[in-house]
Amino acid sequence: MAHIELPIAPELGREFPGIVGPMTFRPETAAPINELANMLLRGESTLTRGERELIATHVSWKNDCFFCQTIHGAVAAAQLGQDEKLVQTVKTDWPNAKISAKLKALLNIAGKVQEGGKQVKAEDIAAARAQGATDREIHDTVLIAAMFCMCNRYVDGLGTWAPRDPDMYRARAAEIVEQGYSAVTEAATAVSIR
Amino acid sequence: MAHIELPIAPELGREFPGIVGPMTFRPETAAPINELANMLLRGESTLTRGERELIATHVSWKNDCFFCQTIHGAVAAAQLGQDEKLVQTVKTDWPNAKISAKLKALLNIAGKVQEGGKQVKAEDIAAARAQGATDREIHDTVLIAAMFCMCNRYVDGLGTWAPRDPDMYRARAAEIVEQGYSAVTEAATAVSIR
Repeated sequence: MAHIELPIAPELGREFPGIVGPMTFRPETAAPINELANMLLRGESTLTRGERELIATHVSWKNDCFFCQTIHGAVAAAQLGQDEKLVQTVKTDWPNAKISAKLKALLNIAGKVQEGGKQVKAEDIAAARAQGATDREIHDTVLIAAMFCMCNRYVDGLGTWAPRDPDMYRARAAEIVEQGYSAVTEAATAVSIR
Repeated sequence: MAHIELPIAPELGREFPGIVGPMTFRPETAAPINELANMLLRGESTLTRGERELIATHVSWKNDCFFCQTIHGAVAAAQLGQDEKLVQTVKTDWPNAKISAKLKALLNIAGKVQEGGKQVKAEDIAAARAQGATDREIHDTVLIAAMFCMCNRYVDGLGTWAPRDPDMYRARAAEIVEQGYSAVTEAATAVSIR
């Protein structure tokens, strides 16, 4: 049971898991959060969707949010040739992951943002620029990391539940890749039982 | 100088301060963030606007974000009879502030969210309910606190500057009280020099 009474998912016979629970409880605030997620993670960018989902996944792992790190890890994997091993390495040991030097420099910044905004130092920015990161890429990395510090707290601060079966996340990730974040939440809200 | 090159405010001859800097840099992502702020801090609620701004201010103080704690503190004061002393007490010592027992219980939850979502325990929720807090009030408290964990990191993670003159915040707060968050950012973006 979550800390507040949330709508029920008919196919589960219990609350929608993770962030979908509070988003179906209050669709008005879900809309701008999903709009922001769509822009940052799926909108026009010189970072691939897979790279941006890896940033979200790493920050969620640092915040110990099981639901967010697992669903965004599954979305990342779906956009990176189903490479779940790579996703796992980016969570726990990104310096040794098979990713670009630029993405490593951006993950370093994202990890500092998770600890607190002031942990980002001029040398972290300089290191990202040295690998070719643009102002827009640095901006979006900071905002993605900051956004997941919000989402992770929203999910865990309300005591939502998270499925343990990886196949549930793979199936949901396929829907997100196909339809985006707003559509998936709107579909859940439409069938929710209050 | 911020970590990235931000648009210039004509009246200042330098970057817009705080969150307004990156919001003028990327108005697309500013729009849903401001929409969320308007809903949570100014939209329909059984918590007053002043109470909700106090929650935002306390969390921003805990995150040591000078810009956010000062501007939202000024907005809170403007909506609480210009009681700047009360705002200061809520930042640093809310158990001894002259506020309702319900708001104290909600500030306790908000402070836990700032530390991490999992810090919110069933007894924190029970204590808020015992003071009459509703599910919707608990939900919005958690999301306001989580949102400011995003905004504070966005502001400080990009190394934005913050004015020191309290009158600048009082003047800006009056605009926000009058016009809301979206309008103020849109006006800044319209006059920004790139």
